[in-house]
Amino acid sequence: MGKTDVLISEVGPRDGLQNTKAFMPTEYKKRWISAAAAAGLTEIEVCSFVPPKLIPQMVDAAEVVAHAKTIPGLTVAALAPNYKGAQRAMEAGVHKLTLTISVSKSHSLANVRMTPDEAIASAKKICDFRDSLPPEQRPKIESGLSTVFGCTIEGVVSEDEVVRLAIASAEAGCDEVGLADTTGYANPEQIRRVFKKVRAAIGEKLGGAHLHNTRGLGLANVVAALEVGVRTFDSSLAGLGGCPFAPGASGNIVTEDLVFMLEAMGLRTGIDLERLLAIRELLAEGIPGELLYGYVPLAGVPKGFVPASGR
Amino acid sequence: MGKTDVLISEVGPRDGLQNTKAFMPTEYKKRWISAAAAAGLTEIEVCSFVPPKLIPQMVDAAEVVAHAKTIPGLTVAALAPNYKGAQRAMEAGVHKLTLTISVSKSHSLANVRMTPDEAIASAKKICDFRDSLPPEQRPKIESGLSTVFGCTIEGVVSEDEVVRLAIASAEAGCDEVGLADTTGYANPEQIRRVFKKVRAAIGEKLGGAHLHNTRGLGLANVVAALEVGVRTFDSSLAGLGGCPFAPGASGNIVTEDLVFMLEAMGLRTGIDLERLLAIRELLAEGIPGELLYGYVPLAGVPKGFVPASGR
Repeated sequence: MGKTDVLISEVGPRDGLQNTKAFMPTEYKKRWISAAAAAGLTEIEVCSFVPPKLIPQMVDAAEVVAHAKTIPGLTVAALAPNYKGAQRAMEAGVHKLTLTISVSKSHSLANVRMTPDEAIASAKKICDFRDSLPPEQRPKIESGLSTVFGCTIEGVVSEDEVVRLAIASAEAGCDEVGLADTTGYANPEQIRRVFKKVRAAIGEKLGGAHLHNTRGLGLANVVAALEVGVRTFDSSLAGLGGCPFAPGASGNIVTEDLVFMLEAMGLRTGIDLERLLAIRELLAEGIPGELLYGYVPLAGVPKGFVPASGR
Repeated sequence: MGKTDVLISEVGPRDGLQNTKAFMPTEYKKRWISAAAAAGLTEIEVCSFVPPKLIPQMVDAAEVVAHAKTIPGLTVAALAPNYKGAQRAMEAGVHKLTLTISVSKSHSLANVRMTPDEAIASAKKICDFRDSLPPEQRPKIESGLSTVFGCTIEGVVSEDEVVRLAIASAEAGCDEVGLADTTGYANPEQIRRVFKKVRAAIGEKLGGAHLHNTRGLGLANVVAALEVGVRTFDSSLAGLGGCPFAPGASGNIVTEDLVFMLEAMGLRTGIDLERLLAIRELLAEGIPGELLYGYVPLAGVPKGFVPASGR
């Protein structure tokens, strides 16, 4: 695989599957991850380390990580909501660990029963634990700031608070800070403004964008983020996950559509769109009845389309 | 109504209805147009003047124009594919007339049995006829270049040819030249490049963007067009029309989502989103069973949302 311009981090096996009605059999998860890597994805968030009682879809997290780690060149990422989950993730040997820190106090309390500042303190404890491990066992840690662009409980979220928590995350020891539009509230102007502010505060520790398509603005927000230099995007195969309201109003942005857009724009993702599209069949089998989103899968690529990665 | 930053030209009654399975009763068309104007839309493409034998949905074109002309302040636009249709539109007294000129020769021949150059010659004849009318009866004429960003028959469309036909349209007497992504092939990079090229060639005669959402890139392309100074966009209530492939893959960009995005970005459209959303009920009644698209209608606006027009 050649040089790439944009890193797409596939979050479907984590963000997607924790919202499905059915449990995807572990064998299907493994096949999905292998197929995604074979299609050219170099970073996959394969699971979250959450209490299986709360999210039974993630009961096989360690087994899934173990499989993913056998794939050469793949960055195996996972999410953890708290210290205990983070420890389990590190025991499993993930390469990258994402901690979620909600900027909205109400959302943070509802979601993880911690204030944002308590979540930062927890992140520091997790980073300290990580630093106590032998170097080869230390994962890269991302602070995934959530409800950055608005909160369903509080409404408008303070941009100063976003910046403050980004700086606090970096000081706690996180390697990078990603910004998530958890609620699908963001608009392109806001994306440009907030990413610029956070970069001004923490420089190259600014990570990627985790965008939702709840109000149809997912790819529009990607265009805005690209303009201000963002080069890492989370997305989900078939748009699984996020917070779907109804058919057509998916949560996560759809990896297939994102890859098409970027490649059409001349930005190399390193991903083979045809092979990526073929993985949808596996989802249809592994979680039957689940709605699969995406425009390009239905419409196909334009006649004469040459992806940037193939030029 | 105060100052606006962006003009949204509603094309649903024309582009939307000519693709529906059922005929929308004339009374519903009139109520839709009145309600859209009351919501703040100042330009509506109300019909096309095509042979009723080919498109029976447009049999009441003249009656619909007559009704629309009773609405104070509304620019009543219509489309015509040829000289005869243009004459009928001018007899009906439209304020704005859009002629379609396909940049792809194959598409042009298939669609109107004229080469692009023959379509330009026809546009000149139409402009000459317009100029022979008394000044108060002369509509503004737009050359709507179609298949600008790619063609389902030819694939890639020459950008030089786009520029050539834009210049030829202006020389033929058209007041403005709009660019249409008829096939939903456009990507944001291409949008920026082609609009810039056409503006360099014809300056302020460059009109608006008619974008489709076939591959989910409709609003992303709007963001790119805004960046290069485009301030007029066609869209369709509920995303009616265009070339839908399947649920979720609509044709035209959805007016409701477009208004939300622009207002959220701080760009005033002059349109009241709540009143706009309420018109969907009328569509559900007037063309029962037709799929209505849109994300904002399902997800609602964000908590605490204040539109630019209301600030």
